Amino acid sequence: MSSALLTDHYELTMLQAALAGGAAHRRAVFEVFARRLPGGRRYGVVAGTARVLDALENFRFGPEELDFLRAARVVDEPTLEFLAGYRFSGQVYGYREGESYFPGSPVMVVEGTFAEAVLLETLVLSILNHDCAVASAASRMVQAAGKRPIIEMGSRRTHEFAAVAAARAAYLCGFGSTSNLMAGHVYGVPTAGTAAHAFTLLHDSEEDAFRAQLDSLGVGTTLLVDTYDVAKAVRTAVELAGPDLGAVRIDSGDLGEVALEVRRILDAFGANRTRIVVTGDLDEFAIAALAASPVDGYGVGTSVVTGSGHPTANFVYKLVAREDAGGVLRPVAKQSVGKPSRGGRKWAYRAVEDGTAVTEVVTLEPAGGRHRPLLAELVRDGEIVGREPLEDARARHRATVTELPTMAHSLSPGDAAIPTIFS
Amino acid sequence: MSSALLTDHYELTMLQAALAGGAAHRRAVFEVFARRLPGGRRYGVVAGTARVLDALENFRFGPEELDFLRAARVVDEPTLEFLAGYRFSGQVYGYREGESYFPGSPVMVVEGTFAEAVLLETLVLSILNHDCAVASAASRMVQAAGKRPIIEMGSRRTHEFAAVAAARAAYLCGFGSTSNLMAGHVYGVPTAGTAAHAFTLLHDSEEDAFRAQLDSLGVGTTLLVDTYDVAKAVRTAVELAGPDLGAVRIDSGDLGEVALEVRRILDAFGANRTRIVVTGDLDEFAIAALAASPVDGYGVGTSVVTGSGHPTANFVYKLVAREDAGGVLRPVAKQSVGKPSRGGRKWAYRAVEDGTAVTEVVTLEPAGGRHRPLLAELVRDGEIVGREPLEDARARHRATVTELPTMAHSLSPGDAAIPTIFS
Repeated sequence: MSSALLTDHYELTMLQAALAGGAAHRRAVFEVFARRLPGGRRYGVVAGTARVLDALENFRFGPEELDFLRAARVVDEPTLEFLAGYRFSGQVYGYREGESYFPGSPVMVVEGTFAEAVLLETLVLSILNHDCAVASAASRMVQAAGKRPIIEMGSRRTHEFAAVAAARAAYLCGFGSTSNLMAGHVYGVPTAGTAAHAFTLLHDSEEDAFRAQLDSLGVGTTLLVDTYDVAKAVRTAVELAGPDLGAVRIDSGDLGEVALEVRRILDAFGANRTRIVVTGDLDEFAIAALAASPVDGYGVGTSVVTGSGHPTANFVYKLVAREDAGGVLRPVAKQSVGKPSRGGRKWAYRAVEDGTAVTEVVTLEPAGGRHRPLLAELVRDGEIVGREPLEDARARHRATVTELPTMAHSLSPGDAAIPTIFS
Repeated sequence: MSSALLTDHYELTMLQAALAGGAAHRRAVFEVFARRLPGGRRYGVVAGTARVLDALENFRFGPEELDFLRAARVVDEPTLEFLAGYRFSGQVYGYREGESYFPGSPVMVVEGTFAEAVLLETLVLSILNHDCAVASAASRMVQAAGKRPIIEMGSRRTHEFAAVAAARAAYLCGFGSTSNLMAGHVYGVPTAGTAAHAFTLLHDSEEDAFRAQLDSLGVGTTLLVDTYDVAKAVRTAVELAGPDLGAVRIDSGDLGEVALEVRRILDAFGANRTRIVVTGDLDEFAIAALAASPVDGYGVGTSVVTGSGHPTANFVYKLVAREDAGGVLRPVAKQSVGKPSRGGRKWAYRAVEDGTAVTEVVTLEPAGGRHRPLLAELVRDGEIVGREPLEDARARHRATVTELPTMAHSLSPGDAAIPTIFS
């Protein structure tokens, strides 16, 4: 399926005017960056890069797209002709997925003619703004959960395809699994889940429901114990399943208090290894508050798929350099009030001392030296060269988070964990 | 493309256990409702119903889906066999798109066997939670804007497919157009847009850029005037275009102040009919604050596609009735702490007096009388019967909003505009 119409109308009218005026074929550099991290967060996390590459591969104007644009009179015939032959032939560099980013980090750089690069603005931003918002929230939750696993289960709280991308982004940041089957199918994210209240209510008694679930899914399953009376349900669960019951799930009430009571009952029945999973409007703050409670795993829904209060990452896609009439590449930047931009093609490096990140270094020329380069080659002359397995991104995220200074894991609002220095 | 895997893992494991245990074929009624409106809003708006019907039509487990489920060991062979033959054969009733809703409104009712109805939970909720969140925010913005048109331009701030659904939901609530071309193609939403700062920066001068745009798009176009100096840009614009310039767009600064200055300059040049469009992080509050400013139209991005602070609508999909072992349909409801549910299949009516809505009436039996029935037949014995043109939903929204009491349009947090009475 073509991704070409997942684009704003004005990208095409700009193209038309630039083709007619003659500037369309000037070489241009666009940069994706965020002026700030949302809500006093200490770091952001890059996710969605691989999805940008997939979308780029399918960015083609075929007969269906061209017929629509013609019928809706979006652009003129010369522009339609250009679009019919459109293939991105330029370069894309970007931060790798799982890497952290900070205000001003050039997380993606797109070079090509103005015509070919401007068309990608909407789609690139849609993907990165969504996936990075989810990843940036997910990473905080994983840090708050420590060694306890988290399952992502927010599909029902967001657009049905956003749910798939959200599951991928959360897994990339260390969530253990997702409820979303499509994310399992398309991205290989492990999927998990057992039963809802409806399953208990379907049966004439809670005991009937638990027995049916245990018979079919085995004693390793997770029984949901808060449909009626939690204490009674836990006793029923262990009586039916024995001490090898896999887990119980609590979805309501004061989770910390209820978990304590459930742990006591389970232990009294010898079910010492039966795990307690809690769910129900959890976010990074609620997870952190449960650190001392006898909880073995978390299920997180709404808050992770909606970026925990910040559903979009504030990335913009700005023209930072372009050829002038004489063919020389010139830095450019708008001067709009309150929206600072820095002209010029950028390079970016992470300065790390004794294993701890200390500075984000953004330069106008490639810099050698010992700092870690952050911009990887993703597309070379229109050919996608930057694909990698999702597990590599997941490992990179673990590494980048470990490298951040301790204050990066503060959940209170404040400054970015490391400063961004433009030099 | 099949929508069947846009589903939570646990819907399928519940199905497996219910098939094995024998309860899967009990007749069941699921209800979609919200326990509260987000953020002290006075009403919610139903959107996404048509997308639910589209998704239902494509909810099929073909070889690709079954192979994945088998390889990932999600469910056993008897369950895979059931899925291979899955066709929803039940009934769906729902509030019509554009209609308002309130806490406890049964916006959708799904009747079928437990097996066929439980599978739809995730997908139905994904669509309604997303689309209703956008619609509920969009409706407030349209009311705040009065007669001034709003263009939806938030595609870049949300997942690339969520953007398409958001454009549709916003249009349904009275937005005039969208930037999103796919929404134009798939749903017939009018699309609009002219140029970004990049277009100005591409050229060697702002004058070159404006000339190129006017030559190609005509004097009726909208020129973006805040790349450098607004006052200078407006003069350049009118000098080049003459007094018939269509519009200018301001995207930064104190929009009310800048609009005043721009209006003065335009009028001084005789461009009295040139419109002023403002954009830049607008929401319903900012729109309302600009009511007295010389603004002719708004462009709204982030806030509408992210539900203006409430990106999900809090809908749940609850089993409210099911057959018992004797074949009698029984109301059911969980008793979880803090999550009130009311058992039983519901009907819903809007009581309207002298043209003003006064009560949402929810009953356990169909009620005759003069109240407007809110549940329309959408699916009959598995066949989709509830499709309607998008323009009908748009007209319904205008009517339902007009009918609400005046306090419904208060932007301050408070109670729902009308009470929901269960009888």
